[in-house]
Amino acid sequence: MNSFVYNIPTKVYFGENQLGHLGEELRKFGRRVLLTYGGGSIKRNGLYDRVIEELSKADLEVFELSGIEPNPRIESVREGVKICKEQGIDVLLAVGGGSTIDATKFMAAGACVEHDAWEFFGANAKPINEALPIVTILTLSATGSEMDTGGVISNLATGDKLGRLAAPLLPRVSFLDPTLTYSVSKYQTACGAADIMSHIIEVYFNTQEDLFMLDCFMEGMLKTVVKYAPIAVAEPENYEARANLMWTSSWAINGFINGGKRKAWSCHPMEHELSAVYDITHGLGLAILTPRWMKYCLDETTVDKYVQYGVNVFGIDPSLDKMEIAKRSIALTEEFLFEKLGLQRTFTEVGIKREDFKMMAQKACRYGDIKGFKTLTPADVEAIFEMCL
Amino acid sequence: MNSFVYNIPTKVYFGENQLGHLGEELRKFGRRVLLTYGGGSIKRNGLYDRVIEELSKADLEVFELSGIEPNPRIESVREGVKICKEQGIDVLLAVGGGSTIDATKFMAAGACVEHDAWEFFGANAKPINEALPIVTILTLSATGSEMDTGGVISNLATGDKLGRLAAPLLPRVSFLDPTLTYSVSKYQTACGAADIMSHIIEVYFNTQEDLFMLDCFMEGMLKTVVKYAPIAVAEPENYEARANLMWTSSWAINGFINGGKRKAWSCHPMEHELSAVYDITHGLGLAILTPRWMKYCLDETTVDKYVQYGVNVFGIDPSLDKMEIAKRSIALTEEFLFEKLGLQRTFTEVGIKREDFKMMAQKACRYGDIKGFKTLTPADVEAIFEMCL
Repeated sequence: MNSFVYNIPTKVYFGENQLGHLGEELRKFGRRVLLTYGGGSIKRNGLYDRVIEELSKADLEVFELSGIEPNPRIESVREGVKICKEQGIDVLLAVGGGSTIDATKFMAAGACVEHDAWEFFGANAKPINEALPIVTILTLSATGSEMDTGGVISNLATGDKLGRLAAPLLPRVSFLDPTLTYSVSKYQTACGAADIMSHIIEVYFNTQEDLFMLDCFMEGMLKTVVKYAPIAVAEPENYEARANLMWTSSWAINGFINGGKRKAWSCHPMEHELSAVYDITHGLGLAILTPRWMKYCLDETTVDKYVQYGVNVFGIDPSLDKMEIAKRSIALTEEFLFEKLGLQRTFTEVGIKREDFKMMAQKACRYGDIKGFKTLTPADVEAIFEMCL
Repeated sequence: MNSFVYNIPTKVYFGENQLGHLGEELRKFGRRVLLTYGGGSIKRNGLYDRVIEELSKADLEVFELSGIEPNPRIESVREGVKICKEQGIDVLLAVGGGSTIDATKFMAAGACVEHDAWEFFGANAKPINEALPIVTILTLSATGSEMDTGGVISNLATGDKLGRLAAPLLPRVSFLDPTLTYSVSKYQTACGAADIMSHIIEVYFNTQEDLFMLDCFMEGMLKTVVKYAPIAVAEPENYEARANLMWTSSWAINGFINGGKRKAWSCHPMEHELSAVYDITHGLGLAILTPRWMKYCLDETTVDKYVQYGVNVFGIDPSLDKMEIAKRSIALTEEFLFEKLGLQRTFTEVGIKREDFKMMAQKACRYGDIKGFKTLTPADVEAIFEMCL
């Protein structure tokens, strides 16, 4: 068991009718606010007006940057950096899902340096020692960006989609109102649930011994996703389901569950190459990859983790043969993702082609083999891609 | 489900060999440190010397207050306040268990006001708007004071033992090294485990609907205590057991699991009256009370919560009759506390006498009936005390 540092000071207002605190929280950081959002759904559903009203009441000066893309691009980040610098922005307010929040994080960091924001990424990435304060209003339960230090940005010019973690990127305050996710489509709700599930599985499937307490917590979060994601898909305005998914999305990736474990992510580095090239929804890519990766890694040396997962998350009879439990646990994961959530099952269905496998596999391993649950070489990644066809 | 604010910014260094960060963390708050500790066990086991070495390396000026009692007393708090004011202390460093940390919290708050520190307690308690920064090094897994906003202080002159919560009391940084609990006696380890279990049960047994995800987390923490407390008692130097108990002690009461729930504690207000009068260990009082309180509250309206507890924590067969499951869950709780942990089972064994029941029951309800899982009047509290004889 490794030693670790736990440090997640994000303040969260959870529940309905908490936006009355927005102005007072922003005022702690200054008066000049950059409001960032995506394609304008917040204008259609009335959230934009509510936010502007709160900002006006608190006598804040508001600048805006809209149109942040799903799989957000470095060009949007650059635009935000420019506004921050030119307008002397004090605090950034991201209203949206993980894409908007991720892009906003690198605007906040880019505003504090002279170099281009893309230099925060890649093998020779520049340090992120400071960032302007970030406040978020979450409208989609998925990436956990509202309570973590990371973000992922795409550069279509180079064909790269790269992630970065840095403590100054942690939002200072996040508003999590489950009712703001009522208007999320069934499809995006399902993709978000697959993303949450993957964040937990990436940490849970690990060969290193760790804190039993945290394994229990991960199993609890997985049970929560399995129970409530289909309800949220079927009944978009079910508060209990939306609330459980929302708080789980934050805790799945804020770092708490990593305590004492080595980092060992596998599906995320593979998926980032898919969505860098094909611009598909991140959660969908993860859904297609995860069960295949689970099958690929299953053997006598890893089977115990699958047994723990199958018994504690899906309630499989522990008296069965170990390998049988493992296989059933994968089958139940597939059933959840592809039948209960209704996500597409194969690369073929979403148009991802074999001709790109070698290139994407090489890129997934650009920093070396993926040292995950099992070590994956580019050839292993290609083999997993083949299973997804 | 209620809305709530999550705000727990304590930074935690977890694991062995983290004390090298002590100096740098304290220096963030200033140079003049008040080091507080209890009966001197930290001198016998070498921790005192390690701490002093780190403080010297960081060129900190150290003042000391030792001898803080179990069930810490207001007199110790007053002494600490006096040192803080006279010496212009910048930061307090509490080295010990919940008693030392609790007392230190009210020293830190008392240093910022003119009135006596006892005025922070009781029906007309003064506000706690600020406190000097607090850093802790935990040596006993039990109260969770290392990561929460509360503390409990005894006033033997008035026969009161009163708790107080206030945001400024939250430690800024806590060092949790499981090896520092290796020297905790079997008896105190068992009492600490009973305290942790009670913190979870006080929140878990609630008739209000809440976040399923948090119920899963509470069940995971209860399973952790049930699994590892007997191991820690049997093998005091088992790192895995000590680590799981330590991190669970913090998360059992830092406020996370309350999210969305009404506050509904029952056994703690009853127990505080026992240990105010008899000065017994808090966790032991809780261990004796908890199963009797569970029996007292069990009926057709509450049985479902016992079923959830019995099935998910103890693995009782869910196909049994509900009331049968509930009774088994109480029996297994008793078996855990009194057989596996070896704690005393009755008031008689620890010298608590019937003649004090009426007075203690009245005091437990001094602010009105206890609005817990079931509402308890003074007569109910007396009846539960009777069951403990």
